[in-house]
Amino acid sequence: MSATTSTHADDESSISVGTYLFNRIKQLGINSIFGVPGDFNLALLDHIYEVDGLRWVGNTNELNAGYAADGYSRLKSLSVLITTFGVGELSTINAIAGAYAEHVGLLHIVGVPAQSSENKKLLLHHTLGNGDYKVYARISKELSEKAIFLEDAETAPHRIDDALRTAFLTQRPVYLAIPTNIGELSVDKTLLETPIDLTPPSNDPVTEREVIDRVLRLIEHATNPIILVDACANRHDVREETARLAEVTQFPVFTTPMGKSAFNEDNERFGGVYVGSLSSPEVAQVVESADLVLSVGALLSDFNTGSFSYGYNTNNIVEFHSDHIKIKRATYEDISMKPVLDELATRITPRDPALAVPVPKPMALQTAPKDTTLTQDYLWTNLSSFLRPGDVIVSETGTSSFGITKTIFPNNSVGISQVLYGSIGYSVGAALGASLAIEEIDPSRRVILLVGDGSLQLTVQAISTMIRWNLNPYLFVLNNDGYTIERLIHGPTSSYNDINPWQYTKLLEVFTAKNYQNYSIKTTGELDEIFESEEFANPDKIRLIELVLPRLDAPIALVKQAEITSKTNSA
Amino acid sequence: MSATTSTHADDESSISVGTYLFNRIKQLGINSIFGVPGDFNLALLDHIYEVDGLRWVGNTNELNAGYAADGYSRLKSLSVLITTFGVGELSTINAIAGAYAEHVGLLHIVGVPAQSSENKKLLLHHTLGNGDYKVYARISKELSEKAIFLEDAETAPHRIDDALRTAFLTQRPVYLAIPTNIGELSVDKTLLETPIDLTPPSNDPVTEREVIDRVLRLIEHATNPIILVDACANRHDVREETARLAEVTQFPVFTTPMGKSAFNEDNERFGGVYVGSLSSPEVAQVVESADLVLSVGALLSDFNTGSFSYGYNTNNIVEFHSDHIKIKRATYEDISMKPVLDELATRITPRDPALAVPVPKPMALQTAPKDTTLTQDYLWTNLSSFLRPGDVIVSETGTSSFGITKTIFPNNSVGISQVLYGSIGYSVGAALGASLAIEEIDPSRRVILLVGDGSLQLTVQAISTMIRWNLNPYLFVLNNDGYTIERLIHGPTSSYNDINPWQYTKLLEVFTAKNYQNYSIKTTGELDEIFESEEFANPDKIRLIELVLPRLDAPIALVKQAEITSKTNSA
Repeated sequence: MSATTSTHADDESSISVGTYLFNRIKQLGINSIFGVPGDFNLALLDHIYEVDGLRWVGNTNELNAGYAADGYSRLKSLSVLITTFGVGELSTINAIAGAYAEHVGLLHIVGVPAQSSENKKLLLHHTLGNGDYKVYARISKELSEKAIFLEDAETAPHRIDDALRTAFLTQRPVYLAIPTNIGELSVDKTLLETPIDLTPPSNDPVTEREVIDRVLRLIEHATNPIILVDACANRHDVREETARLAEVTQFPVFTTPMGKSAFNEDNERFGGVYVGSLSSPEVAQVVESADLVLSVGALLSDFNTGSFSYGYNTNNIVEFHSDHIKIKRATYEDISMKPVLDELATRITPRDPALAVPVPKPMALQTAPKDTTLTQDYLWTNLSSFLRPGDVIVSETGTSSFGITKTIFPNNSVGISQVLYGSIGYSVGAALGASLAIEEIDPSRRVILLVGDGSLQLTVQAISTMIRWNLNPYLFVLNNDGYTIERLIHGPTSSYNDINPWQYTKLLEVFTAKNYQNYSIKTTGELDEIFESEEFANPDKIRLIELVLPRLDAPIALVKQAEITSKTNSA
Repeated sequence: MSATTSTHADDESSISVGTYLFNRIKQLGINSIFGVPGDFNLALLDHIYEVDGLRWVGNTNELNAGYAADGYSRLKSLSVLITTFGVGELSTINAIAGAYAEHVGLLHIVGVPAQSSENKKLLLHHTLGNGDYKVYARISKELSEKAIFLEDAETAPHRIDDALRTAFLTQRPVYLAIPTNIGELSVDKTLLETPIDLTPPSNDPVTEREVIDRVLRLIEHATNPIILVDACANRHDVREETARLAEVTQFPVFTTPMGKSAFNEDNERFGGVYVGSLSSPEVAQVVESADLVLSVGALLSDFNTGSFSYGYNTNNIVEFHSDHIKIKRATYEDISMKPVLDELATRITPRDPALAVPVPKPMALQTAPKDTTLTQDYLWTNLSSFLRPGDVIVSETGTSSFGITKTIFPNNSVGISQVLYGSIGYSVGAALGASLAIEEIDPSRRVILLVGDGSLQLTVQAISTMIRWNLNPYLFVLNNDGYTIERLIHGPTSSYNDINPWQYTKLLEVFTAKNYQNYSIKTTGELDEIFESEEFANPDKIRLIELVLPRLDAPIALVKQAEITSKTNSA
């Protein structure tokens, strides 16, 4: 190819592969790059500093870096993580698996040894000592949409573009290995002038027309239709299309736990969270008696469906997905929901809001005498009163991810949780990534983390990175003395569900926070007080709020789910 | 097979697969089991409590659990780690890779969903959402000697035995997946009465004789022979055979960095550490002018050899390995060194110690005015004065693993480091595992951790588990304000090598230690004081010693190695 050369960058018309890479990343709106340095990526990291508006976050470990990249991507649709060969990439691989399972677009760049080292099969540090330099790439391939190993300057720009495009369009992780020598080779600078094409492949027009006609007919004949919004409405970004569909149809709208925040909960048409048999009776009644379900971005995992306990009384189900659409039993492959939803909203004659069927109304806030022991039930219901539009609410797998389904999210808020993959510790890293993302999007917004004590212990050092960057999230630590979700599933008093208690309110000080405040809350009155405080509402410092809760107290949805899970595991 | 049944354990002659497993583990001398609970392993964990003398450690996260299992195995030749499907097993996989690279025997048990769930391809939590329940096992297979997935009660006992035997004999990790339903099936209890056969396969006698005869002839004709002891002398346990060989031959003995502590450094015949071009001139002179090198358990990785800079002036090299022996250019496959070394020591006529050639003498302790700023050089040399027989010295990859080669180890001490795989953060988890192991072997022994600030941040919560078990290691934290080893390789002032500073001396308090002491050491005088203190020498509490060191100060061996590595990476 004439457009590239393989000598080192040495004139104004050429740049290094590394510089090319980071310019491309910046062009896609990314400002923060996550990871941990290692000698096989150090030279690559130098090139970050050549691009204005990019920052190297510098995480405390690779798993936290991966979780942070995941959280960042959930707000910015793409993120970049850089680790080093072997030790670094394997340490973060659980975060990559989570991003894969949960549809999160993420580019994982790994600095690997120079090609000359591989050719000589040198017994380098970070290898397995057997000369196999591709073993880690094979592993990542199992958990990525695509795994790319750069081999020369000629193909590098095209393959870098492909990696970024694939991660963005599929909302899955992509693996990109860059040998230390390749990052320094030079490529044609003018390649940067043509933006990466992020247009999704267009739907086949004949198939799309058939789909739309069938859906319109179903809508026409339905008397009790509903819209059910799930995870991929967020991940493949059809929030706006879904809102328009609800507006023109005036159908009641429900979300799943993973779909929470994909639809505005302040909206008149919002009816609550549907989780199969774990739903409130009012929600179950409306959803299960519907004669048409328009399901947007479904991800039907156990914890997202009350262990597969959906009770539809109709076969009229339309599933809208990012890469196919299913109408009743018919699957339309390679049809993406985004243009279909858009076209539907355009073609439907808007209904009169006055004629819309009523939807279940959200639960009122709870009240209790001031010195009542704080409970999960009180917390999750009344957390609604503290939230404000634009908030990012990160809830950990465990009592938090179940409890949060009771909380009403205000408009434009974003819910982050890992309901399908469910790796404990995830939320702390994710809250870091989310905090960096909102700092870039709108610094007046707030990040609110809800994490249990057991989970926090896995990934606590992510808080240090929040402090390093002067971020001001709210860190609610639910201290219930161990792994409560596990206690409910099996072994309520078994010592394997115990943990060593920490002095949580000393953590910010240990991590050298300068502008911070600690709280320890034991009663409903104390919780009310901070939720009502104007001073507390202002995210002007990092806050850690320890919530002392009874050991076996849990949201009712979790108690029920735990019983089912326990049975499934012994089946 | 008549010996087993597949019903649930319900009479005195049968036990559950889980109970069988933990009895087998206990029979091999293991008392501590590492890991993190998760709903797919909870029922299995119950069976630990049925076996007297077994304890569930309960780690703060899976990576620390894996590192701890590695450290434990380096003292007890085998360890057991239990994680849960997906999220747990992937979080620890970097520790598994390290154990594979460094020859550490470790059984990794993973609790996976019930077979009925897999058969129905349920979209369970912790899956990738695609119904593929074997993806994680495929990944672990890449990093394990063997990957076993239990399928029924009939074959379970045999396969459990095979897993334990393989991990022990090969000193590599073995993966064992146990579906939740399988752990509860019943097997014949009397199978426990026949111990697992741990006898290594015996060498072919004709080949072994040829090998021994050739080595004896080489020894007979040598005038300047040496013995070089490396990593696998520790891992495949030929320390005793090596000591006898040194005793009868009176040859000078050297170790590599990874071989440190495989030979008694108090021994008259010990000459120092050989690291190729990074060796002291006296050591290099003797090793490189030898006319016969008996190399025991070599693992010739870059950081173990001064980047492959061995300078032998002879072709008379005999390499003793666990699964083959090489004499000059001839390889003898499937010959294990242990019986060969034993037979050699028996057949050689003992030489008169008086006629032995002199060996280089170890460096004397350094002295300095009391208020001199502490340096790495001073630390590593004078650390020798603090050590005592039986100590376990755990040194982190980075300045510590390079510095420690200057420290003289007393008799029966054990050095733990990850020189080949080199995953930073490893040493903190490994120190936890080592502390639990010596508590079982001999509680009067001490564990001494030497870790840099950057590395500590990755895995700090392992300290919480030390506190949970009232362990009393010495935690020396080398605070040099960032990733010094990386600064030396690339980017000495680059911000990617910076970290957020912590208040290290407040960590023990945050983790709720009760019996502890903190120290902050800035001068040589302060270091001398603790090293001379009788009170300090007594391991009766957990101690954290912050050593404040200049930012770019490093052991000279590391400075030289970093220069070479930097060149290799840009080649």
